[in-house]
Amino acid sequence: MRLLPLTEGLHSAEAFSRPYLESFLELVRSIERSPLRYANALDGYLIATVFEEPSTRTRLSFEAAAHRLGARVISISDPRSSSSVKGETLSDAARVMGGYADLLVWRHPRDGASRRAAQVAGVPVINGGDGRLGHPTQTLVDLSILHQKWGVIEGKTVGILGDIQNGRTARSLAWSLAVLGARILLLPGSGLDWEPGFENRLMHRFAYRLKRVRHPLIQEWTGNPEARMLEPKGLVQGELFGVGTSALHGLDALYLTRLQEERGAKAHRGGYPGITVEQLKDPLLQDTLLLHPLPRRDELPVAVDEDPRALYFEQANMGPRVRQAVFLSLLCPEKVDLPALNPLPSGNPEHFLAPCPNKNCITHAEGLRPPWRVEGKGKRIFLCSFCDVPLEAPYVGCLSSRKVHPAYSPLVQQIRPENLVPFQTRDQAEKEDYSWGGG
Amino acid sequence: MRLLPLTEGLHSAEAFSRPYLESFLELVRSIERSPLRYANALDGYLIATVFEEPSTRTRLSFEAAAHRLGARVISISDPRSSSSVKGETLSDAARVMGGYADLLVWRHPRDGASRRAAQVAGVPVINGGDGRLGHPTQTLVDLSILHQKWGVIEGKTVGILGDIQNGRTARSLAWSLAVLGARILLLPGSGLDWEPGFENRLMHRFAYRLKRVRHPLIQEWTGNPEARMLEPKGLVQGELFGVGTSALHGLDALYLTRLQEERGAKAHRGGYPGITVEQLKDPLLQDTLLLHPLPRRDELPVAVDEDPRALYFEQANMGPRVRQAVFLSLLCPEKVDLPALNPLPSGNPEHFLAPCPNKNCITHAEGLRPPWRVEGKGKRIFLCSFCDVPLEAPYVGCLSSRKVHPAYSPLVQQIRPENLVPFQTRDQAEKEDYSWGGG
Amino acid sequence: MRLLPLTEGLHSAEAFSRPYLESFLELVRSIERSPLRYANALDGYLIATVFEEPSTRTRLSFEAAAHRLGARVISISDPRSSSSVKGETLSDAARVMGGYADLLVWRHPRDGASRRAAQVAGVPVINGGDGRLGHPTQTLVDLSILHQKWGVIEGKTVGILGDIQNGRTARSLAWSLAVLGARILLLPGSGLDWEPGFENRLMHRFAYRLKRVRHPLIQEWTGNPEARMLEPKGLVQGELFGVGTSALHGLDALYLTRLQEERGAKAHRGGYPGITVEQLKDPLLQDTLLLHPLPRRDELPVAVDEDPRALYFEQANMGPRVRQAVFLSLLCPEKVDLPALNPLPSGNPEHFLAPCPNKNCITHAEGLRPPWRVEGKGKRIFLCSFCDVPLEAPYVGCLSSRKVHPAYSPLVQQIRPENLVPFQTRDQAEKEDYSWGGG
Repeated sequence: MRLLPLTEGLHSAEAFSRPYLESFLELVRSIERSPLRYANALDGYLIATVFEEPSTRTRLSFEAAAHRLGARVISISDPRSSSSVKGETLSDAARVMGGYADLLVWRHPRDGASRRAAQVAGVPVINGGDGRLGHPTQTLVDLSILHQKWGVIEGKTVGILGDIQNGRTARSLAWSLAVLGARILLLPGSGLDWEPGFENRLMHRFAYRLKRVRHPLIQEWTGNPEARMLEPKGLVQGELFGVGTSALHGLDALYLTRLQEERGAKAHRGGYPGITVEQLKDPLLQDTLLLHPLPRRDELPVAVDEDPRALYFEQANMGPRVRQAVFLSLLCPEKVDLPALNPLPSGNPEHFLAPCPNKNCITHAEGLRPPWRVEGKGKRIFLCSFCDVPLEAPYVGCLSSRKVHPAYSPLVQQIRPENLVPFQTRDQAEKEDYSWGGG
Repeated sequence: MRLLPLTEGLHSAEAFSRPYLESFLELVRSIERSPLRYANALDGYLIATVFEEPSTRTRLSFEAAAHRLGARVISISDPRSSSSVKGETLSDAARVMGGYADLLVWRHPRDGASRRAAQVAGVPVINGGDGRLGHPTQTLVDLSILHQKWGVIEGKTVGILGDIQNGRTARSLAWSLAVLGARILLLPGSGLDWEPGFENRLMHRFAYRLKRVRHPLIQEWTGNPEARMLEPKGLVQGELFGVGTSALHGLDALYLTRLQEERGAKAHRGGYPGITVEQLKDPLLQDTLLLHPLPRRDELPVAVDEDPRALYFEQANMGPRVRQAVFLSLLCPEKVDLPALNPLPSGNPEHFLAPCPNKNCITHAEGLRPPWRVEGKGKRIFLCSFCDVPLEAPYVGCLSSRKVHPAYSPLVQQIRPENLVPFQTRDQAEKEDYSWGGG
Repeated sequence: MRLLPLTEGLHSAEAFSRPYLESFLELVRSIERSPLRYANALDGYLIATVFEEPSTRTRLSFEAAAHRLGARVISISDPRSSSSVKGETLSDAARVMGGYADLLVWRHPRDGASRRAAQVAGVPVINGGDGRLGHPTQTLVDLSILHQKWGVIEGKTVGILGDIQNGRTARSLAWSLAVLGARILLLPGSGLDWEPGFENRLMHRFAYRLKRVRHPLIQEWTGNPEARMLEPKGLVQGELFGVGTSALHGLDALYLTRLQEERGAKAHRGGYPGITVEQLKDPLLQDTLLLHPLPRRDELPVAVDEDPRALYFEQANMGPRVRQAVFLSLLCPEKVDLPALNPLPSGNPEHFLAPCPNKNCITHAEGLRPPWRVEGKGKRIFLCSFCDVPLEAPYVGCLSSRKVHPAYSPLVQQIRPENLVPFQTRDQAEKEDYSWGGG
């Protein structure tokens, strides 16, 4: 069985382990305390920033970080110069750019683009934002400001307000908060919730449970009287679980996001949720840190800026420092000694299951057969190795026994991951010479 | 009374004092003589160039200067990536960029943008051109080439030909020539004169007087037989002032400008004034240096380029050197030891008078209440602290006596600046509990 | 007779002599073996990349090269910021940019733009691609990969497939292969052949002869059963020249190009020629290296990428190294000790013959009188000194004898080049006081 090569670089929050994040956040603080310590660490290195979607702050934050470490920078900042506009594939572009620079930062409109680039570039690739999915360095910025204020993030309650369907920062942040054991309060705008699959994966992976909480502000923000709170099972051992919902008593941070109009999002009836000066007087928000990845729209009025809870400009200003730490970890790991990133199980390209159901997946633009990777110990799910979107596979075969079973069968749980072969119909399996194994 | 913080950086020619300019011009010459002397002066510094209007030469001139001093550069060169296009305020953008770089160079279509950026950026901001008003570093380039040729600029006669209404270089240059005591001959194209307010302020501030001069070339250029000459009163002490106009006998430099079509300017009947090879044979122009900020249009034919009086390419080539001096003065003042820039009286934001009458003022785009600053010792005028446009204030109150007077009243001249409260109507004053003090 | 100044920099493949190319290719290999040897060679230098046509890979390849040598870079990457869009001439822009940087890399849509820029810039100019004509550094990349694989290029057979009419790389490569004595197999797509003038000049200059060869693949690619092969007369001394065409027995490299749609090219009936996986099984191609300047379209399917003959990504990755060698040769010739580039006979601007018949020549955009240079020892031809397009001159006068002759006359061959005066009609000559010399 031939697996795709493991991708080098930083592509999604799924790469973060708890030891990695804890060490990383300490590294950011040490850079903050001694900004000149690494001033020449990347002398002689050349970093390319390739931004195929409009951006200025993210690109400049990366470039500032590179310069502060002594690296040089070459840059594509104009989406209309991008490879895709000229009819060139990302794969070709990444292969060429990988021959020019020692590290690539790539922003691309397609989900999974960064992983694809990393397969061919020959040098590390950092995801500078791809499609709706990933923006892992923004999440590292978000965590860094929380770490700076709190020291420990575990057990804190962080609300995520707004467009969690289309905002790539919301997903990356939620996943990373789960890595660190924080409570996640989901406050999507009307019609802007994410799909259940992502949330189920998160809860399953981190042994989280779902709770429902209510508060008048939740009603004001989302139009619903209650909201979903994801929390580590370990945190609530002593509690008696009542039926129904409980009141929300505390909120340590509120992460606001803007409506992702450029990804087709539209504000639904009732408008897009934001914070008001009046709401900030509510006791619930008394010590709530206000974060926002910026740029903002109406969800975050200027009148809030002078409030001591408003941290979003401090947050923005941490961008270059955090990206310095990312560059150091990839280009001179020996200088910063971080635990390894999680390798991504990279899928099996030889069992072609189906095209990725995600129309925005990079596989469609590049004419690639999506390799499917396996997740889950109970019910196995199959994820596109590029964009992490799950494929429904009602039947699962075993490569060694050549039997096929229904996906829910306990027999499937005993098949070793490398032997799993998903099928969409029993017919399809039988055509490939799998016999019915029942279940 | 809370004043706005003094803005740090370089925003307009009003910041120039005569000692500052004289020292600055010497610094430029010393850089010219020893270009490598400051080659590493800005090692470790990061400069951001943010150009929200198309520009290449100004941006590259700043960037060349930065590199020649050892600084690194990050850059926004595409107006369509600008904060304003994405619905973000300049204030937010400047606050973020100020966290990335050690100095910002900002070009923006709104008058007063540079001063606004400086209030929030937390690092020095250099005006790279904002709206119609300011382009102070271009003026420093213009003065440098004159200083290089003449040594002393005081007493020289400089004509400014073309679009002095919309050209930001014309205003900055005229003001700076007045700082240095030169004669200014105004040669506006038809319908392209500036407003009287600016000229009146200049004459008042520098004790200049208005003279009218005539010459056949003036007729050719402007369509009028005579032109306004502004000159220092001190220069003409010995003269007997006749009635009417006098003939123009000398012109030491002629500053050509192009029609600012991108600011809505249109050439009126009779065409746009320029120079011709034929005109250069006129004795009046025998020793006249020809300057132009470039790019040029038809006002300056290529046939003139080989003329020894044509200095505009030398002028352009001084751009990086002059901007090196500006960077040094702001980032390592101890190395170059220049007199301080004039601080700008920054206005009183607590007395809200009225929205700024200048529709292009940054205050409108940013939702700011314009603070009004006071100028003049006789009749007081009120200027928008961002864009310098005056507001008509027919009534003036005294914060301490709570009396209101007509603006022309001698009583107003006795009110201390910090107590002045302008009103547009007597009613408005009385509603704020000012009683009629007469005058 | 006043000649235009010789242009400094690198403008076209015509500048390459065989000793130059051989030394250059060795230099590239030595940079490859010791990439850090020149890491600080350009410390303190500032290089400007001015790209007035969309490009990313070429620009970034130059910029990567500059940074790898320690130089700093300023850049214009957006064609809409270009001088021409703003109504400024290339001449003005180059004069200004030459005052900012120590070397300019210029890409421009007009033929001959680079030579024009070099006349006024005051610093070396490298042609980063101008119009249809030149792209000499791409050719140096192409030769470098061949040199790396073969050691010696002389005597090898290189096919050029596709749009040789509009592709600037095809012409530059063919010329350079002739400098080195290789065989050139021309495989133009239907309707995409170049004009005979260029080929005639090449054959004349390098003593090449034309042969016709046939092969089934030639038919597949071009729709014609046979193709033109240009080869050095010296190579074939031993051969008996049969009548008609001979079979093609070997092809050492195949250079694919894409259709230059941005230059108005359209694929004609039968489609645009490319390579297929099936064709690669043909014995003719058994050891054929596959090159492509990239980006590619359908002419080069992804399925070929893993073939060991596919060298185009290696070729692309040599870009920065080759451009390092170019920068070194122009900015620190003493460090690399290359033979001189051929100076370009730069034409006589005083004998105005006619406007250049090439509508895309830079002379039209800049309002320049094209100087005509003389080539050929037998029949003299007159070439535009900017764009190399020949002008038909049926009559030729002698400046010293004041006689005019028909161009084909043997008398013309005895006139010294600096005395040649081309005329389009006998009348024209007689109006300028040339008398009829017969011939």
